Amino acid sequence: MNKNSSNLPIGVFDSGIGGVTVLKSLIESFPHEKFIYLGDTARLPYGSKSPSTIYNYSEQNIKFLYHQGVKAIVIACNSASSHFTNSFYKEIPIYGVVKPSAYYAVNSTKNNKIGILGTKATVTSQSYVDAIQSVDSKTNHIFQQACPLFVPLAEEGMADDIVTEIIAKRYLESMLKENVDTIILGCTHYPILKPTLKKVGNSVVNWIDTGQSIAKLLISEFNNNKILKNTESNFDKKIKILTTDESQSFKDLASKILARNNLDFQLVNLSF
Amino acid sequence: MNKNSSNLPIGVFDSGIGGVTVLKSLIESFPHEKFIYLGDTARLPYGSKSPSTIYNYSEQNIKFLYHQGVKAIVIACNSASSHFTNSFYKEIPIYGVVKPSAYYAVNSTKNNKIGILGTKATVTSQSYVDAIQSVDSKTNHIFQQACPLFVPLAEEGMADDIVTEIIAKRYLESMLKENVDTIILGCTHYPILKPTLKKVGNSVVNWIDTGQSIAKLLISEFNNNKILKNTESNFDKKIKILTTDESQSFKDLASKILARNNLDFQLVNLSF
Repeated sequence: MNKNSSNLPIGVFDSGIGGVTVLKSLIESFPHEKFIYLGDTARLPYGSKSPSTIYNYSEQNIKFLYHQGVKAIVIACNSASSHFTNSFYKEIPIYGVVKPSAYYAVNSTKNNKIGILGTKATVTSQSYVDAIQSVDSKTNHIFQQACPLFVPLAEEGMADDIVTEIIAKRYLESMLKENVDTIILGCTHYPILKPTLKKVGNSVVNWIDTGQSIAKLLISEFNNNKILKNTESNFDKKIKILTTDESQSFKDLASKILARNNLDFQLVNLSF
Repeated sequence: MNKNSSNLPIGVFDSGIGGVTVLKSLIESFPHEKFIYLGDTARLPYGSKSPSTIYNYSEQNIKFLYHQGVKAIVIACNSASSHFTNSFYKEIPIYGVVKPSAYYAVNSTKNNKIGILGTKATVTSQSYVDAIQSVDSKTNHIFQQACPLFVPLAEEGMADDIVTEIIAKRYLESMLKENVDTIILGCTHYPILKPTLKKVGNSVVNWIDTGQSIAKLLISEFNNNKILKNTESNFDKKIKILTTDESQSFKDLASKILARNNLDFQLVNLSF
């Protein structure tokens, strides 16, 4: 099987629900492509785990998607993107969300002051700092903040809650004092909390969303034939969403985020 | 090997740090016993996962401890205790924390009104309601509340924080209106938040802690020779603490909870 075969789907994975915000951006940008999503809900979250565990889980997810037959893979998880370096599977392109978000942050800031909100794993890895400096080595006003309570607050649907506002003020305080004009939402859960984040950080001009950044990167990858376009005009638009654990709240939230009802949920076993 | 051999350690497991509060109670109650602790930190938390996934993880943990050589196993996790029914390993006694806590709640309440704080998995399982009614079928004023934000708040060390107080008021509001005089802390993380919980629920007379309840049960199990006492007078008091993921914050918090420095931390692979 030619793994770059144009009519195969694009595989997308995350530890859980967060990556569905990335999937949404990709579906909107590429309505003529097929997608298959894997949420490793039996082992979520990734953001509090160690680099080697995150790497091992990512490699298992990639292996699984590879064997499903995909033409490209998007790691829709900042923690996994931060710790994933090289894959065993060389035949298909694999994209993380850190580099494209760093690229758009550098190209958006006017005062060269960028804030990064992420999980402990992402912040500790320094992946965003390295990625920003590889885009432009002169951008060295970078302020990172680990936001461990944002994922549970998003999972609880507390996007518009006084508690989320109190916590957001604490997490954003020091980077706002530094007058950042650009903040990277360096975890796919965080766009869910955007209303409160924008309220707390109302002086911030650019909010960089990893879903939109990776979608822009893939547009150029399609244009450069790094990924081949789907040639089927008439195909099943149903999106396959695979999870490693059964969860009604995941299904409900995924249906709400994607705002569509032609989703095909399936429970899968990565045999761990 | 006789699995009930008196000089073997008692195995204790949890998804992560919470069960260390149970281990602490057991060490205090049984200073002449040996203990081995397993924290499945690579897959934590359990409380938001499905019954079948929690069951599978518990069975893997039990299998692992069994092969380490233990004379009894304590499931120091309410979510796992709620979903664990029968083990493949019949030679050694296996104790959950739900039944003993239910027993002490029924024996503590004066007005027959009991509140239960737990994870989504524990509350959905109805395990505490069933256990309370099997102790005393007339105790039917039982009020359950899932508290999904308590684990991350405890993990963040926010025992004494305004945010924890706001969240605790929300979670406890309806059971306090019902005038419960007894509340079961139905998750091993919750004792970490006890100062704030006692402040919010200051009308509550009895706070049932799962660590103390299981310790009381084991006293009677030793007295009845269901578990044989360690006969070695001179043994290595070092406590082996095994985890499935590497985490400095786990080590720091475990050392703080147990208030001792003769801990032997080891990373283990359950090959998932």
